[in-house]
Amino acid sequence: MPAKGVLVAVTADVVIAGGGVIGTAIAWRAAAAGLDVVLADPAEGDAASLVAAGMLAPVSEALFGEGALLRVNLLALARFPSFAAELEQVTGHRVGLRREGTLAVAYDAGDYAALMRLTAFRRSAGLEAEELDSRACRKLESFLTPDVHGGVLFPGDWSVDNRRYAAALREAAAAAGVRVVRDRVTAVLTTDGADGAASADGVAGADGQAHGRARGVALADGGEIGAGQVVVAAGSWSGAVHGLPAALQAAVRPVKGQLLRLRHPDGMPPVLTHTIRATVRGADVYLVPRADGEVIVGATQEERGPDLTVTAGAVHDLLHDAMSVLPVTSELVLAETCAGLRPGTPDNGPIVGGAGSGIPGGVLLATGHYRNGILMSAATADAIVACLTGQPPAAEWEPFGPGRFLAGEEER
Amino acid sequence: MPAKGVLVAVTADVVIAGGGVIGTAIAWRAAAAGLDVVLADPAEGDAASLVAAGMLAPVSEALFGEGALLRVNLLALARFPSFAAELEQVTGHRVGLRREGTLAVAYDAGDYAALMRLTAFRRSAGLEAEELDSRACRKLESFLTPDVHGGVLFPGDWSVDNRRYAAALREAAAAAGVRVVRDRVTAVLTTDGADGAASADGVAGADGQAHGRARGVALADGGEIGAGQVVVAAGSWSGAVHGLPAALQAAVRPVKGQLLRLRHPDGMPPVLTHTIRATVRGADVYLVPRADGEVIVGATQEERGPDLTVTAGAVHDLLHDAMSVLPVTSELVLAETCAGLRPGTPDNGPIVGGAGSGIPGGVLLATGHYRNGILMSAATADAIVACLTGQPPAAEWEPFGPGRFLAGEEER
Repeated sequence: MPAKGVLVAVTADVVIAGGGVIGTAIAWRAAAAGLDVVLADPAEGDAASLVAAGMLAPVSEALFGEGALLRVNLLALARFPSFAAELEQVTGHRVGLRREGTLAVAYDAGDYAALMRLTAFRRSAGLEAEELDSRACRKLESFLTPDVHGGVLFPGDWSVDNRRYAAALREAAAAAGVRVVRDRVTAVLTTDGADGAASADGVAGADGQAHGRARGVALADGGEIGAGQVVVAAGSWSGAVHGLPAALQAAVRPVKGQLLRLRHPDGMPPVLTHTIRATVRGADVYLVPRADGEVIVGATQEERGPDLTVTAGAVHDLLHDAMSVLPVTSELVLAETCAGLRPGTPDNGPIVGGAGSGIPGGVLLATGHYRNGILMSAATADAIVACLTGQPPAAEWEPFGPGRFLAGEEER
Repeated sequence: MPAKGVLVAVTADVVIAGGGVIGTAIAWRAAAAGLDVVLADPAEGDAASLVAAGMLAPVSEALFGEGALLRVNLLALARFPSFAAELEQVTGHRVGLRREGTLAVAYDAGDYAALMRLTAFRRSAGLEAEELDSRACRKLESFLTPDVHGGVLFPGDWSVDNRRYAAALREAAAAAGVRVVRDRVTAVLTTDGADGAASADGVAGADGQAHGRARGVALADGGEIGAGQVVVAAGSWSGAVHGLPAALQAAVRPVKGQLLRLRHPDGMPPVLTHTIRATVRGADVYLVPRADGEVIVGATQEERGPDLTVTAGAVHDLLHDAMSVLPVTSELVLAETCAGLRPGTPDNGPIVGGAGSGIPGGVLLATGHYRNGILMSAATADAIVACLTGQPPAAEWEPFGPGRFLAGEEER
């Protein structure tokens, strides 16, 4: 039922808040599964997806003690190639999946010791890792500085061109019948009148408690979209969507990342084949080559709230660290500097699913993917579409439901 | 007389090739002197003027043995304030002239020794210079690193907001009746048929030799502008204008300069009052504050031909050197990176005037201002308008005529 004085302009089976790769991937797969889907996307793509480097590196990102996160990342990596292949087939566009592997290099002995500890952890997870001395590293990447102490080749860590991938997802979603509303979701609307206008009909949430059920979303321009199922996939802005438990809103925070897009000057042959991850005196930097000659250099991790400024210090440090391991970087063109916001969570894990104390029935979350949004997009779409169609998601997602942040929480 | 098959769409007393600050300043003053002026400006402003930092620093730029250049720079500086005041009065816009002076700082003992030699030279030219120890430098600019070895305050080295200044010049020129043709001048056309189409009428050039006289210019789009007087003020592209002696064309080369525009994040008070010129282990960097919170950091000097790419190495080095002397730079927002081309000459001096072997009558040059285009713009306009109206330019310009590059040269 529409709120007083507000017309429900659009209705659908499912409304998805957020037009990043997570939301768009879900929209595509949900529409392909036969659902009528509206995607509320304030801009074309979000900052995190466009700013990303597109690394598909499940282990480089998994820290000690994060075994559950590693398992879901590996699920995501295993799913990615077939998902990308279908995307390329549907759209006719290449998304730039590169499988040359990632070469992790250590600048000094301390950096090398840290890399060896990470390598042992990766091997304990059954992953391939090939230790290389400085000379062997330079055999793989001839422009590396001879100062590199040593490295490890991770053949299973790939990359994708995040911008091509995001554009292809938008195209596939549109072709599958997804309608896009160019506005921002401000609140989940429920039948119990949390928005102060709807009637309370007392339908129980999926957790068995009476919190009402989703009946749509409110938009920033004052309109509404009516839908019985709502997916909140708004990245670092997910916490700004009202109608969710306060503890869940607070669980997602923006983590600023700045990165650079370099390109080769006319006539210069490619300086890089593999993704390079380097530790330079304790600081992490990566260089990701693209088929079109671009090289992405990233990325800072800054707790600065929703700040999207590009700072002199970050650009300096990224260039300095990149030039330390790959001196020829200085000859590349600085084509773009940018900043994005990753959706971080207290345990670094994503929030995927519904069914928690205080979560209205019919509401699902797909957020908190932090640095792994591109990697996890395909597997997240599978999990959410399973939930939307009454199927169980893969077991690897079990530790990452929203319920873990909601013990004893009251709805607000 | 029009060339065969080409319509002369526009005629004027004077046509000026080039829409940078030099050409636009000349256009304004020539129109104000009663001449009918057309300015051929391919874009709105040129790269060098827009990329410049706007330092008005006659001596910092004058090297040992360049006494004539110093004298013309001092003439230019003396003229600048009244010229800027008239410009502000005519347009009603401020151009951001700052007279706080320039603080030159030396990072280490070697840098300090070099600064002391420069200071002695400046004093020998009768210029004010106040030596300051590290603490006194930080009293003037509290964000300077304590590592600064020492410095010298040059109260007579000012700055102007080059973009405001260029915009005001365009407005003043338009208000004075200057017509702008949005195209690039490819050649000076003469009555002796150097362009292969006009009739040779044998009028002698200003040097008394028979090279024909200017009758206008040819444009890149195929059109022409008819005028009995032509001013070539096309900056680093001046050498690409045909119809001038080959040695003169060869005398102007592009010298690439990259610089950065930083700005303060919201709420941060200004970090700088004076222009800072620093020598950091032999490398020169400057930081120029603007009234609107911008800080310009520059500039590289690169012999790379007409290359306008922004390179990773240059941005790194500028940020590194700026942060070395003013660590708070790292907190500033990197708002823009840009590259421009300065018109350099073999002796680092400008080329202002006409009357040389092989130069057609009625043709004047105003180019080769290298790093001092903004500084010299007012005095150059005076000198060229004097030539256009049959007056002698100031004596300081005498060593900077085009004839010095033309001994025995034949027209081509």
